[in-house]
Amino acid sequence: MPDQNAGTSRLFGGVFNRGGAGAGDAAWLQALLDVEAGLARAVERAGRAPSGAGEAVTKAAAARDFSPAEAAEVARSAELTGNPVPGLARVLARRVPAFAAPAVHQGATSQDIMDTAAMLLAREAADAVLADVSAAADAAARLAAAHRGTLMIGRTLLQQAVPVTFGLVAAGWLAGLDEARAGLEAVRATRLAVQFGGAAGTLASLGADGPRVVTLLAEELGLAAPALPWHTQRLRVIDVAAAMARVTAALGKIARDVTLLAQTEVGEVLEGPGPGGPGGTGSSPSRGVTGGPAPGGDRAPRRGGSSAMPNKSNPVAAIAILGCARQVPGLLATLVACAEQEHQRAAGAWHAEWQPFSDVLRLAGSAAAWGVDLLAGLRVDSSRMAANLGASGGLPLAEQVTGLLADALGRPRAHDLVAGAAARAVSSGLPLRDVLLTALESAGADVAGITADQVEAALNPAGYLGASGAFIDAALRAHARDALG
Amino acid sequence: MPDQNAGTSRLFGGVFNRGGAGAGDAAWLQALLDVEAGLARAVERAGRAPSGAGEAVTKAAAARDFSPAEAAEVARSAELTGNPVPGLARVLARRVPAFAAPAVHQGATSQDIMDTAAMLLAREAADAVLADVSAAADAAARLAAAHRGTLMIGRTLLQQAVPVTFGLVAAGWLAGLDEARAGLEAVRATRLAVQFGGAAGTLASLGADGPRVVTLLAEELGLAAPALPWHTQRLRVIDVAAAMARVTAALGKIARDVTLLAQTEVGEVLEGPGPGGPGGTGSSPSRGVTGGPAPGGDRAPRRGGSSAMPNKSNPVAAIAILGCARQVPGLLATLVACAEQEHQRAAGAWHAEWQPFSDVLRLAGSAAAWGVDLLAGLRVDSSRMAANLGASGGLPLAEQVTGLLADALGRPRAHDLVAGAAARAVSSGLPLRDVLLTALESAGADVAGITADQVEAALNPAGYLGASGAFIDAALRAHARDALG
Amino acid sequence: MPDQNAGTSRLFGGVFNRGGAGAGDAAWLQALLDVEAGLARAVERAGRAPSGAGEAVTKAAAARDFSPAEAAEVARSAELTGNPVPGLARVLARRVPAFAAPAVHQGATSQDIMDTAAMLLAREAADAVLADVSAAADAAARLAAAHRGTLMIGRTLLQQAVPVTFGLVAAGWLAGLDEARAGLEAVRATRLAVQFGGAAGTLASLGADGPRVVTLLAEELGLAAPALPWHTQRLRVIDVAAAMARVTAALGKIARDVTLLAQTEVGEVLEGPGPGGPGGTGSSPSRGVTGGPAPGGDRAPRRGGSSAMPNKSNPVAAIAILGCARQVPGLLATLVACAEQEHQRAAGAWHAEWQPFSDVLRLAGSAAAWGVDLLAGLRVDSSRMAANLGASGGLPLAEQVTGLLADALGRPRAHDLVAGAAARAVSSGLPLRDVLLTALESAGADVAGITADQVEAALNPAGYLGASGAFIDAALRAHARDALG
Amino acid sequence: MPDQNAGTSRLFGGVFNRGGAGAGDAAWLQALLDVEAGLARAVERAGRAPSGAGEAVTKAAAARDFSPAEAAEVARSAELTGNPVPGLARVLARRVPAFAAPAVHQGATSQDIMDTAAMLLAREAADAVLADVSAAADAAARLAAAHRGTLMIGRTLLQQAVPVTFGLVAAGWLAGLDEARAGLEAVRATRLAVQFGGAAGTLASLGADGPRVVTLLAEELGLAAPALPWHTQRLRVIDVAAAMARVTAALGKIARDVTLLAQTEVGEVLEGPGPGGPGGTGSSPSRGVTGGPAPGGDRAPRRGGSSAMPNKSNPVAAIAILGCARQVPGLLATLVACAEQEHQRAAGAWHAEWQPFSDVLRLAGSAAAWGVDLLAGLRVDSSRMAANLGASGGLPLAEQVTGLLADALGRPRAHDLVAGAAARAVSSGLPLRDVLLTALESAGADVAGITADQVEAALNPAGYLGASGAFIDAALRAHARDALG
Repeated sequence: MPDQNAGTSRLFGGVFNRGGAGAGDAAWLQALLDVEAGLARAVERAGRAPSGAGEAVTKAAAARDFSPAEAAEVARSAELTGNPVPGLARVLARRVPAFAAPAVHQGATSQDIMDTAAMLLAREAADAVLADVSAAADAAARLAAAHRGTLMIGRTLLQQAVPVTFGLVAAGWLAGLDEARAGLEAVRATRLAVQFGGAAGTLASLGADGPRVVTLLAEELGLAAPALPWHTQRLRVIDVAAAMARVTAALGKIARDVTLLAQTEVGEVLEGPGPGGPGGTGSSPSRGVTGGPAPGGDRAPRRGGSSAMPNKSNPVAAIAILGCARQVPGLLATLVACAEQEHQRAAGAWHAEWQPFSDVLRLAGSAAAWGVDLLAGLRVDSSRMAANLGASGGLPLAEQVTGLLADALGRPRAHDLVAGAAARAVSSGLPLRDVLLTALESAGADVAGITADQVEAALNPAGYLGASGAFIDAALRAHARDALG
Repeated sequence: MPDQNAGTSRLFGGVFNRGGAGAGDAAWLQALLDVEAGLARAVERAGRAPSGAGEAVTKAAAARDFSPAEAAEVARSAELTGNPVPGLARVLARRVPAFAAPAVHQGATSQDIMDTAAMLLAREAADAVLADVSAAADAAARLAAAHRGTLMIGRTLLQQAVPVTFGLVAAGWLAGLDEARAGLEAVRATRLAVQFGGAAGTLASLGADGPRVVTLLAEELGLAAPALPWHTQRLRVIDVAAAMARVTAALGKIARDVTLLAQTEVGEVLEGPGPGGPGGTGSSPSRGVTGGPAPGGDRAPRRGGSSAMPNKSNPVAAIAILGCARQVPGLLATLVACAEQEHQRAAGAWHAEWQPFSDVLRLAGSAAAWGVDLLAGLRVDSSRMAANLGASGGLPLAEQVTGLLADALGRPRAHDLVAGAAARAVSSGLPLRDVLLTALESAGADVAGITADQVEAALNPAGYLGASGAFIDAALRAHARDALG
Repeated sequence: MPDQNAGTSRLFGGVFNRGGAGAGDAAWLQALLDVEAGLARAVERAGRAPSGAGEAVTKAAAARDFSPAEAAEVARSAELTGNPVPGLARVLARRVPAFAAPAVHQGATSQDIMDTAAMLLAREAADAVLADVSAAADAAARLAAAHRGTLMIGRTLLQQAVPVTFGLVAAGWLAGLDEARAGLEAVRATRLAVQFGGAAGTLASLGADGPRVVTLLAEELGLAAPALPWHTQRLRVIDVAAAMARVTAALGKIARDVTLLAQTEVGEVLEGPGPGGPGGTGSSPSRGVTGGPAPGGDRAPRRGGSSAMPNKSNPVAAIAILGCARQVPGLLATLVACAEQEHQRAAGAWHAEWQPFSDVLRLAGSAAAWGVDLLAGLRVDSSRMAANLGASGGLPLAEQVTGLLADALGRPRAHDLVAGAAARAVSSGLPLRDVLLTALESAGADVAGITADQVEAALNPAGYLGASGAFIDAALRAHARDALG
Repeated sequence: MPDQNAGTSRLFGGVFNRGGAGAGDAAWLQALLDVEAGLARAVERAGRAPSGAGEAVTKAAAARDFSPAEAAEVARSAELTGNPVPGLARVLARRVPAFAAPAVHQGATSQDIMDTAAMLLAREAADAVLADVSAAADAAARLAAAHRGTLMIGRTLLQQAVPVTFGLVAAGWLAGLDEARAGLEAVRATRLAVQFGGAAGTLASLGADGPRVVTLLAEELGLAAPALPWHTQRLRVIDVAAAMARVTAALGKIARDVTLLAQTEVGEVLEGPGPGGPGGTGSSPSRGVTGGPAPGGDRAPRRGGSSAMPNKSNPVAAIAILGCARQVPGLLATLVACAEQEHQRAAGAWHAEWQPFSDVLRLAGSAAAWGVDLLAGLRVDSSRMAANLGASGGLPLAEQVTGLLADALGRPRAHDLVAGAAARAVSSGLPLRDVLLTALESAGADVAGITADQVEAALNPAGYLGASGAFIDAALRAHARDALG
């Protein structure tokens, strides 16, 4: 078979294939064989196959030495039947001793094996994603704690607004990651179930043994046993995908912020060199494809760098996260749309699930792995934050000054005085402080009680942070609680 | 303002606007005012407004007598600021006594009011949807119990496969509805929270009072208080939409089955006449638009009927459900994509949420209301089921016959004998039974032990239902448990 | 009927309802009646209704005075039949003289009327959108021509890269708008066709007259006559939606750039005050909802302004465009997915089209109207552009300096020398010019031929614009050609 | 590198990888190298590289013998820079003689190479898809012509409605395929253009030579030269994807019809055995993966068959088409959403395009290849069609009988008489003919002129086909015209 359609993993390296949450050919093959092996053990335990059959099938399923001819047989059979399971079961049955062959695929329909394999892949992906999201959240928590008092300008609608702290920004990221993790944990714990119903969901070919085999199969594979087969009730598929989409959504928000904060004109954060680079944290080696160290030698490319443009430092991790995250909503929509499945097993809607499901797992895995990299290595430039905050000459504090003057002047007059001063400050380029003090001087007696020191104080952004600290603490407490639980 | 863009509700009646889960103009207006009123009460309780201010604002917010000029002012302001809240707050502040005006919108940014209103709308929609999904699930449970033994042919890939019961089909529907309900209940109970952060999420204009006002506002509105503002952490929005999408996915599967089972050539189910029709159950009047009974008179159109084609009886409820459900995946994708929000408040991604969010609530509400109608009124034609099952002349039981013969002949020979007989039955049009008995006769001595009665028994679909009964019972038990809990 | 679900147009003003491309209740009602009137005229011309019938129906269809009872009848009928046409046809037939009644809805099925009405709405929307996209493109062309030499820094991956001109940026916007317009023009010219096939697409009830009535109906409505009915061949629906999606995609790119260029830290562009504001161009009054002038009085809210934050000037038009554009991909996906329609007329997939189709028209219309506003009023701050370009101290020109030195030093040595100088410039904060001249001095004899003036020249961004001018000219030529054609 | 994420091609065989429209790793690699080679030839022709450089690079680019170490280098570089081009260009430059190295990647940015390669892939895919859609359309045309008079029942909302012919059904399929082909042809002819702009779209590093190199590159690759670079104007990407989505939409409709018509209870069509099977047409061998004939031997699985369920014959081609087609809307939505790209080159939105773009090409290619298979091999059972049409006992003709009686009785009385007879026919199970004749007899004198023969004639479905023949002819004429043009 030509590998012309073999996916994009080799060429694109770890851009979309990081973090060990893959669901490509090899992973599917392994999962399908694991399910067949588990089923053989279950039917043996149910007394429906001779002693030793389960072990024999398990051994054959673990061999991982499919010949090209066998692989071609599976592929060809997939084209005749619409899925790879019949061919795979036939190859597997040939590989076991005759006494064990009847244990292979006993009572199952192809969809039983595929769906259960999908659940195994989802579990594997969830474990990788959960580990990475936890590590990313820990890194965000460290940033939130470390920068509890690091002042910066808050930005709304991409315009400077009022002061915040970088700790508050990081606490918001943290809250998103913790919520995403909690959701995925819940799905992993409660929604991954075996599929086993036979041709039309009755397990008729097992006679009265059906429910017992379901229970044993669930035990063998460590999945839940559902009340009844879910061949055409697809909420489990949606739940996995939605939980992964929540992960990429939380990470996408962070990545968007980092690309914006890392803009040349803003310069408040900078990505680190990545796990292989100098100063890399080393705490979170990406799994899977990314593998080895950066190439040695004196011309090793710098991450995010451009030899032609020495001024550039592209935020590669954030870009990769966005590149992953933006593919997920459309895939989730496909999976939700595919839930409209006919009768006992569907014609097409089920088949359309496989690749989007695999892609969602892989993309969430990659985004999460990049997320650890991004957050664990993030460099914060608090002096640029201070400079950007100061550049507006006090305008972001106008609201607080109005509050100060309102007692003496009444709110309307205070508002008008400050608004006028702000307008003059903008048009003249003078600091608001200077314009305000002049305005107050000419305003006369009734503001005599307001001192220049008070005005200075009201223009101090550190005094206008409201509940920022409390919010950071609340997010950190919630994170610590989650980490324990 | 011309009403040219006023939506499609009047023209389309209750097709997409059933069930009381609307989130149109009037519902949004009411929710926004409810939030402003709750905020005024909260700031009064926090000692930040004079006694009576909360009540005064609440009274003004409840008046529901906006003049055309005021409505125009709100709309105009929406165009200048990008959302309706500033104009609405101004109008509301004018409507309260002067002492209470400072309590209006205190400390809030527009997004605080909009997002919290969205949560109130989500709660209202969730309550309507939960009631209807519960009623639909109860109806499915009744069908599952009543038809525990009603034989029909199972269909896979739109081809007849092996026997099932209609009770098992209904139990599958039930499981989907119960899972959808559980998910929505969880979101309603845990994920609906107030939004309150002020301009950039610090509540700076409230000084040290911010967290206390958040808590009081949450109390006033009966929503949760989040750890910190979620202006640009949008998982709550996704969670509501995903829970609604699970509802429409579960209903869409049912509706697809009904349209297929109601095909003229299948004829196994028929929709009832709807709540206003003769024989309508009356147990689940749809709320909202649908209102009164069908028009009297001798030419009242029959639901799903066509005067030109007396043979037609269109499954209108199922079609309406599909018409709703198919709109939801794309809307969910939009909301997930919109989670990539910049900094402290987003430029565009937030604004793009309002209509898809409203639409998802409305469509889930309509689908659920139609779902009650569909399931409570469904008519099951068990004789057509029996006829369709019998039409294949025993072929769906071939697998069971093979099992019977395997003991005497060994599985391979049994398989070949049955497969040959089946092929002959198909090509000749004779019942499998007759062909089989002839084949067995000529097969000679070693099958002498197999009697014609045994063959007949193996061809009895009622004997080839496997775990169907157990699965139905499990689904009914789970439903009963949910209903209690 | 309560208006609870009446859409969001009033509350949100023109945020999502600008530009006259609405497809709400009133527009649909009018379009449906227009189709019925055209059909009556066509059947009269075909000799299938008495003389005068067409005029009588046309007159009744134009009355626009539906009583609440009639509206309720239509809505109720929609619920019984799944669409509003049967009820509407019944009401219309009652309103015409008896002799004309048989001309109403003759030979038609509901879908004929709905689909043809959708084509009329699409044409109306296309006309509004084309006018606005043309005006927006003209404005972009003016910007491209006026700023052909306005230097600014080009940005890639949100990092400063090498110099461009604002004219080139505007030329890129222009090219996108022109491509979007051309596509929509082609769809409007070739893909809008009547739908007329009767119950199952045979027009059997018209006997041999079917094709002739199709032709006449197409003439009456100014639409194309298709080869055969397209009840379940939905590429026309996709084509309209895709053409609109191209419009919002082109506008979304522009709006994204504007929000980024308008960031406080960048400040290179600023939105104008809008059509009603001081200095508004007046050249492009938005149609429809937006209507009148801004409210008089001394406290009229400034567009994009915030009384609490005088430093803010939110790019409202760009935000509204993004708010519209981001809703479209999901709606387009729904419409493409709905193309899988069953047999002669579909159960659900057709019904699911109506609202996404309407929404796409409305959102494209709003985005286009905002686009005129945005581009016609855009203020360009060339001094901020120059300042941002200069702020990197020559680093974006490193590539050109390398080219200069390569002749004397060979490319590898030139590269190393410049890269070293650039690194020192970054770390020291000194201008690249100074660091470079020092480096060249110490490099000795072989660069003696390179003068400081040459280095200065190589650091001049105006000398490193490559084909910018040629590209701008090409875009302007293409635009002029389109405008003529 | 482990192949853990290598896609799903091997395992799933040709289910999603038929027709030669792949865009996997190998195809991307080849296309990227083809672009680099074309660029080297173009810069040589522009006098910017020594004679022979273009040929040398072309030769190196054609070698296809990348070592594992080189592949790993490309993948690693992709992770550092976010895309595979820098690593690939470095490897390529090392493989050419020193004199030719400066011609490699001259003036280009990575996106130039990737985007142009995407256009080459799109062209290759379009050619494969166009060939298959043409073949499928020819097959549909043959069906339309052959079954111009084959009566069947038309079905609306999944209910039997009025008679049609299978020729009309096939003509509708044909029209969809022809429209899809025309759209893709137009995109292939006019919208595939080179991308070449350098770092920020100015081609500054080429000085004044930029536009000439663009022209030469376009010549070398056989693509159009755009007015200016389209790095962040992405309508070309959308156009390719939308044209492919139109193909899958047209095919999806056909596949849906086939799955429904092939239902056991309907049985009007049956899929053929596929290209390798007995009776396969052989006229359209699928390209690519599917390769050879079905495996010989006595147990070769029958396509669509099930050894356990001899009664089954799954419509595998139709199912595969649906499995492909349903993945496309979400992918198209992703690509449209990704058009919102920042500044001169985007951070994430561009990266998110690669896989959906590849997937859309591959899925459209597979669906089209399956479509040839489906339509060329489709078996039509006209006797089942006749039986299903007759099964409703004349009810679908009620409308025509009413027309017959209207002259004698007036339309209202005729309608009531027929409606009453139809209702009695339904409730009694008697043929409408018998009930009608009885009713007419008892209706007395005024229908004396209506003979039983006339009633029989009005109940003849062949007399109630309206414009079916004319519509078929129009579709065939349009197809013949297209085939010539």
